Amino acid sequence: MSKPKVFEKPVGVKDLLPEAVERLRQLEANVLECMRRWGYREIMTPTLEFYDTVGMASATTDKKLFKLLDRWGTTLVMRSDMTAPIARVVASLLRDMSLPIRLSYHANVFRAIEEEAGRSSEFFQTGVELVGDASAEADAEVVALSIASIKAAGVRKFRVALGHVAFLNGLLEETLPQYPEAQIELKECLLRRDYVGYRAVLRRHAIPQVTRHSLESILRLRGGREVCEQALALTQHPVATSAIRHLIDVWDALEAYDVVNFIIIDLTMNGDFNYYTGLTFEGYASDLGFPVLSGGRYDKLLEFFGRPAPATGFSLKTNRILEYLATCQTNQHEPSIERILVQYHPARRLEAIRFAGELRMKPNIEVTTMRYDLAQQRIEHDSLQESNYHRILTFE
Amino acid sequence: MSKPKVFEKPVGVKDLLPEAVERLRQLEANVLECMRRWGYREIMTPTLEFYDTVGMASATTDKKLFKLLDRWGTTLVMRSDMTAPIARVVASLLRDMSLPIRLSYHANVFRAIEEEAGRSSEFFQTGVELVGDASAEADAEVVALSIASIKAAGVRKFRVALGHVAFLNGLLEETLPQYPEAQIELKECLLRRDYVGYRAVLRRHAIPQVTRHSLESILRLRGGREVCEQALALTQHPVATSAIRHLIDVWDALEAYDVVNFIIIDLTMNGDFNYYTGLTFEGYASDLGFPVLSGGRYDKLLEFFGRPAPATGFSLKTNRILEYLATCQTNQHEPSIERILVQYHPARRLEAIRFAGELRMKPNIEVTTMRYDLAQQRIEHDSLQESNYHRILTFE
Repeated sequence: MSKPKVFEKPVGVKDLLPEAVERLRQLEANVLECMRRWGYREIMTPTLEFYDTVGMASATTDKKLFKLLDRWGTTLVMRSDMTAPIARVVASLLRDMSLPIRLSYHANVFRAIEEEAGRSSEFFQTGVELVGDASAEADAEVVALSIASIKAAGVRKFRVALGHVAFLNGLLEETLPQYPEAQIELKECLLRRDYVGYRAVLRRHAIPQVTRHSLESILRLRGGREVCEQALALTQHPVATSAIRHLIDVWDALEAYDVVNFIIIDLTMNGDFNYYTGLTFEGYASDLGFPVLSGGRYDKLLEFFGRPAPATGFSLKTNRILEYLATCQTNQHEPSIERILVQYHPARRLEAIRFAGELRMKPNIEVTTMRYDLAQQRIEHDSLQESNYHRILTFE
Repeated sequence: MSKPKVFEKPVGVKDLLPEAVERLRQLEANVLECMRRWGYREIMTPTLEFYDTVGMASATTDKKLFKLLDRWGTTLVMRSDMTAPIARVVASLLRDMSLPIRLSYHANVFRAIEEEAGRSSEFFQTGVELVGDASAEADAEVVALSIASIKAAGVRKFRVALGHVAFLNGLLEETLPQYPEAQIELKECLLRRDYVGYRAVLRRHAIPQVTRHSLESILRLRGGREVCEQALALTQHPVATSAIRHLIDVWDALEAYDVVNFIIIDLTMNGDFNYYTGLTFEGYASDLGFPVLSGGRYDKLLEFFGRPAPATGFSLKTNRILEYLATCQTNQHEPSIERILVQYHPARRLEAIRFAGELRMKPNIEVTTMRYDLAQQRIEHDSLQESNYHRILTFE
């Protein structure tokens, strides 16, 4: 990749022109309104944070953080997600507010460009955090709200996959206590959904056939509530079985929200192991290879900021959803705003501008005024089609 | 100033809690809607720009820019205003769109902390740019829209001062051709509104008494249209007189918008001389020592990006307006949203969650659900006052 040219923008960033901004603004308003109805109120935090606090606590790897120095030589980072900043606020500015605390956000976040082509270094996330409730009901609420939010964003066809980091942790500890290296390799394969690699690791480490079959069988653990029963048959490990029992509780609570038809349980799905501590979930729009939302439980993070508390949340990948919606061609109903040009001969300026002012009081109208004379030609009514306006009014 | 402590935020940045976010969101929506009605459509640009392009072109002094390096070693800046990024877009992505182009924005901008205490290093600006129209009507439109915008923001009492950089430039060239140093000193005094210093400079440079009196008299050039006539009596310099004639034209066009009662002409007011090229203006809310909006004409900037065009615009100082409104106590009508808690005994979860879902379909309602049991106590109805809710519904 060559060095970008002057007069361009930095790599990985975008300008959003008015049409794109309108779509983003509509999504933003609809999703935040949905979250508000569930009792989640919006918070904003600064773009710059200390590396030693929010930078260290974020799930983003170090090399992907944008860093700079303040004038005391302290390293700052541009926020790479909103979860760590919100944890900081809950532990400081909101330390006297009783738990649980429900917060929402819509914010741009920053990641130094990754290897893969086309990745953005600045993009929007719209999400919530629920701090101070460790129950299965809290997990279910956040999953159900993620479904309501993705619907509010305008996505019609999607699935949300539920997993639990403790199931695999427990199962691997139980079955491969002698193979710590293989444990790590297997997790990494699942993280990048490399099932071929997963099977290869099992073969390479000379793992007994019974164990190998059992570990291969988890690749098929995808489906409804029945998957949990199948998983319980695979393990006696207390960490793994209590993970599955929690998943069953979450599933049952989700029945109350009437959303289980959007859910699949996928025990091969694992979020970042260093970050998530329990339930994890990801949302997929139909025909799309990457998730449009992700979330999960992170019960260790608040402790880092000095106010230990369980927490869960999710974020929509807002820009990806906009790109997806643009390909769908559904609900593309143009907002019914009438664009009007009021053009006037200099001698009739007063009337024209007053008239424009009155028009602007009406709803769903956009009025541009233009003086025409020798320097600036009037737009003829028969060129209305080519113009950017729906109506042209001339004071001549 | 001591180095900030860990677990704090960087100096000069703020967290906005839900109440503050609500006020900001309302202002943002009202002002952008006002701008849209005038034909200005919203644009978004990236937070990071190249130092060599947008950084160099911005009106912000170099030491106030937040800088960082990308991975090719190119210097990036965090945008310090939106005018330069929009000029870049008009000259690149929108190069085929015919002029005039009207764009609006609401964006956070960044300035490395200044000497004065309490200055923010990240704050919002909400504004417009009108590119491709050099007429007095264009200047008047932007001034009139600034007045409509500040009203839409909720400010009731304010004044907008109009000046013109070319008046003072012409007058000083005419009267002090032998005193280039004094010219610069006088401009700097006016820029920081130091009238005592201004008079001291005039005395120090042994300037002839007639000239001195004439230059002192401009300090009284504040008022209505009549100020322009007084100014014309002070100078024959073509640059200065054509500046005043343009101001008169703008004033007359502003009459059509019926806003001259908000306007004063202030010929001592001068924006940044290296940036503005014509009319400049600043808005002041009553009893406030600093402007809440500023704008003006910058006809050289677009050329820097390769598409020469006249341009004018303004930005509201959004955070300052919010702080000002908070002190006014006016239009503080709480948005009429009812916060409801639905709490339930585990055995009645299904009914409670379904009921909450139905409530959420209604307008202006916020519903939080909570399971109560041994671990989490129910909220008694007689403690409603202390709770954060307007209504509590219990499924027991």
